[in-house]
Amino acid sequence: MGMASSFYEYYLNWAGPARRAYASGLALQLPPGYARAENVVVCGMGGSGAAGDYLAALSAAYGGLPVYVVKSAEPPRWCRGSLVYAVSFSGNTRETLNCASRAYRLGANVVAVTTGGRLAAWARRVGVPVAVVEEAPAPRAGWPQLFYTMLGSLKAAGLIQVPSSHVEESIQLLGDREKAEAEARELVEWLLGSSGRLVILAPEPYYPVAVRMRSELAENAKLAADTGQVPEIGHNMIEAWAAGGDARVLVLDPGEEPWSTLLHQVVGLARPASVHVVKLRGGNMVSRMVWGTWLAGLASVLYALRKGIDPERIRTIKAFRSVVEGTTGWDALD
Amino acid sequence: MGMASSFYEYYLNWAGPARRAYASGLALQLPPGYARAENVVVCGMGGSGAAGDYLAALSAAYGGLPVYVVKSAEPPRWCRGSLVYAVSFSGNTRETLNCASRAYRLGANVVAVTTGGRLAAWARRVGVPVAVVEEAPAPRAGWPQLFYTMLGSLKAAGLIQVPSSHVEESIQLLGDREKAEAEARELVEWLLGSSGRLVILAPEPYYPVAVRMRSELAENAKLAADTGQVPEIGHNMIEAWAAGGDARVLVLDPGEEPWSTLLHQVVGLARPASVHVVKLRGGNMVSRMVWGTWLAGLASVLYALRKGIDPERIRTIKAFRSVVEGTTGWDALD
Repeated sequence: MGMASSFYEYYLNWAGPARRAYASGLALQLPPGYARAENVVVCGMGGSGAAGDYLAALSAAYGGLPVYVVKSAEPPRWCRGSLVYAVSFSGNTRETLNCASRAYRLGANVVAVTTGGRLAAWARRVGVPVAVVEEAPAPRAGWPQLFYTMLGSLKAAGLIQVPSSHVEESIQLLGDREKAEAEARELVEWLLGSSGRLVILAPEPYYPVAVRMRSELAENAKLAADTGQVPEIGHNMIEAWAAGGDARVLVLDPGEEPWSTLLHQVVGLARPASVHVVKLRGGNMVSRMVWGTWLAGLASVLYALRKGIDPERIRTIKAFRSVVEGTTGWDALD
Repeated sequence: MGMASSFYEYYLNWAGPARRAYASGLALQLPPGYARAENVVVCGMGGSGAAGDYLAALSAAYGGLPVYVVKSAEPPRWCRGSLVYAVSFSGNTRETLNCASRAYRLGANVVAVTTGGRLAAWARRVGVPVAVVEEAPAPRAGWPQLFYTMLGSLKAAGLIQVPSSHVEESIQLLGDREKAEAEARELVEWLLGSSGRLVILAPEPYYPVAVRMRSELAENAKLAADTGQVPEIGHNMIEAWAAGGDARVLVLDPGEEPWSTLLHQVVGLARPASVHVVKLRGGNMVSRMVWGTWLAGLASVLYALRKGIDPERIRTIKAFRSVVEGTTGWDALD
């Protein structure tokens, strides 16, 4: 497997970067005014924005500030005084650079989260805090760095109410590599053995995990999927799915009521061609989200390797990044 | 066409309910404390939540308060002091009733937006304002009522910065029935004449229109679609789409840069089997969003009629609603 094997190994060893990122987030010193923000904005594309989606879900469930995620180049006009995380693993994502600099000019309290690049250089020049995160073989593989750094810094500033014991459990779960590998392999067998339009279904609080799994399958395994959240899909998409009958459904089940029962019933109504249930392990919401994210990474890489696809190669995404670099209408970073 | 024909006629005549809803939203008297909210939460399923998505996008683009949409039964824990619109066309959506009552108990400033039902009865009992909206043949057909009522009330309270002239233009556009019908028919011809996985693509600020179109096609035409937003999909899904090549792509193009160019380039990279571009007409963002929403409704009903499907019949969604009624774990409304 060569390179691919070391890529897989990196995913398998997420516990280390997760623990270090959380500690560094807790230690991040934000300027005093930052903690007076009334809301949090996360600017980031791909896995960076995904990390923001998780924080939004956690803050809604545990308590904290509203978290608003921007997956584009424009911050919301109302972001004056907001705490804005500008998140780009490489530090060179054009959309995020633009979002950061505009938010800064609008009077937001910006924090850069990055390994370096133009984002770190800009942040140091204008004097906003930079949370430097550890390198990884690819931005998507570095998800724990982004998520745990922001979670730690929000916790240190008293802006999110997730208990330390829940965070700790989520990191400990990442030590159970045997179980994760076994479940990832099971998921891959189902993906290889079934056919039809793939839909990843999750209950609303866990919907960010479905979105992340969709991205991981696209990037690492070059496999397209759709996502759905319960109960929302019961009010629209289920009508089309039941009429079509060509979907295969991957269910992310947190093992909590009323979600488990509802998921079971929705699948019954949608009558898909095939169903696979992934149990999100862990004794709390953070842990279950992290477990699902870990499985998504492992399974997407394993699937690629089984199909002879290089999970590290993302030719079309690179072409898109060049397109965005050449886009006029978004500022260069000043 | 019988019943179906009157359903279509209702969509075709959206200008009336839109105008009346906007006026009644402007006239809605909110208690003085409500305007001191730091954020807005919209609780609603299906088309009700969709109306919230539009407000979130408009407030981000024009200025106003952050709008946070909840498509489930639980309000965010941080919603004390938030302005919470509990939106249910029938007034009997269990998730929304639960969301409203919990938000109220958490200390949110709740407004009910509904034709009546249990939601209106509850709101009157506990003493929160009710914006009563006009009946329609189905909740999805009454979208203008929900959207324009909330937009008007946010504007009257000074919480969103959309200019009156932009709102006025959007309502006037709804008078151009000939053009809308012609474009809806064109879209239907393309849908009928192409095959493959349908993907509806929109630039980020207009993404709520793609989500709404997906819902309309599911409910009225029983046709499944996936959605994608630019630039986000360029960072993940495009890799799978380019590898698969089996998608047909419907592009919602607002005719603004950098979006038009980016959409064109993304489609080039994704290399779909077939492409149809819908131009979102109108001289401003509100108008373009409303135009796309109108087309989605008209085209989804026309498609159903062409295929001999009853657009008003939603058997599986009704079955889902019964399931939710019987769900334990969410409170009954107190």
